[in-house]
Amino acid sequence: MGKTAVYPGSFDPITNGHVDIIMRGLKIFDEIIVLIARHPDKKYLFSVEERMDMIREVIMEYKEEQKRIKIDQTEGLLVNYLKNSDVNVILKGLRAVSDFEYEFQMTLINRRLNRNIETVFLMTGFSWFFTSSSIVKEAASMGGSIEGMVPDVVQKKLQKKYGFETS
Amino acid sequence: MGKTAVYPGSFDPITNGHVDIIMRGLKIFDEIIVLIARHPDKKYLFSVEERMDMIREVIMEYKEEQKRIKIDQTEGLLVNYLKNSDVNVILKGLRAVSDFEYEFQMTLINRRLNRNIETVFLMTGFSWFFTSSSIVKEAASMGGSIEGMVPDVVQKKLQKKYGFETS
Amino acid sequence: MGKTAVYPGSFDPITNGHVDIIMRGLKIFDEIIVLIARHPDKKYLFSVEERMDMIREVIMEYKEEQKRIKIDQTEGLLVNYLKNSDVNVILKGLRAVSDFEYEFQMTLINRRLNRNIETVFLMTGFSWFFTSSSIVKEAASMGGSIEGMVPDVVQKKLQKKYGFETS
Amino acid sequence: MGKTAVYPGSFDPITNGHVDIIMRGLKIFDEIIVLIARHPDKKYLFSVEERMDMIREVIMEYKEEQKRIKIDQTEGLLVNYLKNSDVNVILKGLRAVSDFEYEFQMTLINRRLNRNIETVFLMTGFSWFFTSSSIVKEAASMGGSIEGMVPDVVQKKLQKKYGFETS
Amino acid sequence: MGKTAVYPGSFDPITNGHVDIIMRGLKIFDEIIVLIARHPDKKYLFSVEERMDMIREVIMEYKEEQKRIKIDQTEGLLVNYLKNSDVNVILKGLRAVSDFEYEFQMTLINRRLNRNIETVFLMTGFSWFFTSSSIVKEAASMGGSIEGMVPDVVQKKLQKKYGFETS
Amino acid sequence: MGKTAVYPGSFDPITNGHVDIIMRGLKIFDEIIVLIARHPDKKYLFSVEERMDMIREVIMEYKEEQKRIKIDQTEGLLVNYLKNSDVNVILKGLRAVSDFEYEFQMTLINRRLNRNIETVFLMTGFSWFFTSSSIVKEAASMGGSIEGMVPDVVQKKLQKKYGFETS
Repeated sequence: MGKTAVYPGSFDPITNGHVDIIMRGLKIFDEIIVLIARHPDKKYLFSVEERMDMIREVIMEYKEEQKRIKIDQTEGLLVNYLKNSDVNVILKGLRAVSDFEYEFQMTLINRRLNRNIETVFLMTGFSWFFTSSSIVKEAASMGGSIEGMVPDVVQKKLQKKYGFETS
Repeated sequence: MGKTAVYPGSFDPITNGHVDIIMRGLKIFDEIIVLIARHPDKKYLFSVEERMDMIREVIMEYKEEQKRIKIDQTEGLLVNYLKNSDVNVILKGLRAVSDFEYEFQMTLINRRLNRNIETVFLMTGFSWFFTSSSIVKEAASMGGSIEGMVPDVVQKKLQKKYGFETS
Repeated sequence: MGKTAVYPGSFDPITNGHVDIIMRGLKIFDEIIVLIARHPDKKYLFSVEERMDMIREVIMEYKEEQKRIKIDQTEGLLVNYLKNSDVNVILKGLRAVSDFEYEFQMTLINRRLNRNIETVFLMTGFSWFFTSSSIVKEAASMGGSIEGMVPDVVQKKLQKKYGFETS
Repeated sequence: MGKTAVYPGSFDPITNGHVDIIMRGLKIFDEIIVLIARHPDKKYLFSVEERMDMIREVIMEYKEEQKRIKIDQTEGLLVNYLKNSDVNVILKGLRAVSDFEYEFQMTLINRRLNRNIETVFLMTGFSWFFTSSSIVKEAASMGGSIEGMVPDVVQKKLQKKYGFETS
Repeated sequence: MGKTAVYPGSFDPITNGHVDIIMRGLKIFDEIIVLIARHPDKKYLFSVEERMDMIREVIMEYKEEQKRIKIDQTEGLLVNYLKNSDVNVILKGLRAVSDFEYEFQMTLINRRLNRNIETVFLMTGFSWFFTSSSIVKEAASMGGSIEGMVPDVVQKKLQKKYGFETS
Repeated sequence: MGKTAVYPGSFDPITNGHVDIIMRGLKIFDEIIVLIARHPDKKYLFSVEERMDMIREVIMEYKEEQKRIKIDQTEGLLVNYLKNSDVNVILKGLRAVSDFEYEFQMTLINRRLNRNIETVFLMTGFSWFFTSSSIVKEAASMGGSIEGMVPDVVQKKLQKKYGFETS
């Protein structure tokens, strides 16, 4: 009955920047679907299941908001997923200036495929303005601290993955 | 009772790009307040009254949507206006890449002034991606056609202003 | 006897944006050589032959212009090709702001290798400002419509390639 | 009978970067019209006459090329000038990445006003990649050396203007 | 005997971002000269004296570092000031991506004027990445809080200037 | 006893742009450690040993400066290397505008990992503003001249690597 938005991404893994966008989005929308969009050609550090599990654990800590958050996955066109879910809003986070051309291309293609779809951009919280999954992985892979950049559960999973487990 | 967003700007004059953002915004929000934000230091081509009148005339053609659109003006801090109006969402249009730093600065300052305020960015329709009030004024001031870039009423007002009136 | 320009690229596959640049270029130059520049390290979706065939088919529809268009391929330095062909103008399409640094680097290197070579940039038609071979492939690979972004023959070839053939 | 291009600008004053673009343009075009485009609202350091004189003096040193260069001025829409001169190519210099949005806007507006007009961008010689009339004026106004950035005659005129005359 | 760097700017007024750069610079250099570079054409909110006074007051709080900080002013070419002061390093703060072209132009011109001059860029502390004198003035002029963006003394001066004095 | 800075990079291979930054850095610092930072996931053209050898040979030609230059390599976090070497300054070269986001991310992460670390950016000499290891490799791989872009010894190594050896 309320407004729903789909928040698509790789979430490989989910960062505090992603969580921030979800929480901001819930101020605008009644429900948000966090959607893992799989690309057959891309290589991921975590499996879809691992990524969904991490998102689930992270969301669980937000007692009040969690009822309004769904987690899903899809392969293929985002517009198809939206059509099947009867949702017509895409939520995206804005960080720094890069990748705008790609975002614009995708937004234009999505609009062309379905005139009713609207993409809503929210600005990521300042603290995570330069945080991305890839920079987090790069730092973690070399044993660097990523505290404050990802939720605790993700930090542990990353350290385990890269063999820097802390007892 | 529904969600309201404030869409601030100079609207000197309103362009088709602005109208596009208002219509897109109405897919997300129940009500939009088009807000002329006056700056004491800036020089405008049209007076506040002229600008409000033009917006009013343009909006009037959207029979169904017009009930959900309000027009207002303010001088001073946007956050003060929002507080007084009990609104906590700012709507902004994204065109090309320029002026992002300024938008980021303003969004950060607004957040700092009021944690509850969220700025929502929508991508302008492709056709108006490079349309701005200033480029429209520059073209019109030299007698160039600005058809399709601004609503008809604005086109007439601009031509009158610059002495290129068509009978 | 007239002026000839070489229009180099991967054309994997040719898009409407490329066709647009060719047609604009023919307003400036008497002849244009569409040059498939092969890179030993890059992976392509279509073979050189397939790409040349597609360009040929697309060009054929331009009855008047086709006489002034040649199609060729090369591996190695563009400047060598230009020298052998006795051409000293490179034609490039400008789309959005990205990849400028690369274009600048290549233009500077080409100039250094041969002082007489000039690179001419034309702005792609607005409709194809955000169209690229790679975004077209990404959309097509997921079964998305790419109508209007590539010529019909290319659309069919892409759908066949990705198994979304339409009878 | 050959191809003509109009090279518009403020030329306040002409720099070595402008001269470079003119000479490069003459490799592509048979004739180039250097066009001082006056804006009623802009303030200039040199009068139109002074600017035309400086261009004339500078061009004179290019014995062979000068026959193919014309100097003119206009106020108003560039497209009107082009129409009256029966020219349909605009020549522009590309320096660094800034001001692209403005160039794109103008190119799009010019295309809209006249479908036949094509804008050709040439990359400025590397040595003048960061040279602009305004930076030259800023340096000269403080008595800084601008040798190598502008032709000699311009350097003298600037020094005279700013009271740093050298005997 | 140690290394000295000149940190030039308008400082109209000094912000926490400027202070941050000064303190970072003192990790690299033995002495820093904060230099108010006056432009005859620019309009400033505060007089040179007011600006120097504010910097002085702000610096005074840094008990240990203040001995290594000098405050000065100049009109005219920065390179002349450097020559007279026998300093060959310019210190600049990097914030977001804007104005790079201008910084590059100035750096190149300074190098051309004096081969020995080197410009050193330090990245502003993250918290002040989007803080600038002009955005601070804009916020303050409308009565907005600028706490944390400028030192206390500057905040008071700004509020007084704009008539938002707090008792 | 003096100030030391670490200049990290892939140096695959070292270019004249890198050498330029080292020499500029020596105007600011007493000692510079050229540090080959190995990434387990990246593929390099030259082995670490080859790269170190090339740097060594190049440096050797700078009779006076070579005493103040050290060459080293590391795998893992740069901050760890800095800690072990008791150095707290990172030196980076600024070329064109690209990759700023990455540089900012890394600088912020390094600061977070160690508050005392400062990153100093120097602007590359104009002549090498668009020179990069990758563009040099691309040109060399096709037999293009890279004279003036890399030191002689590197040029020879590259030509040998790509089978364009000159007797």
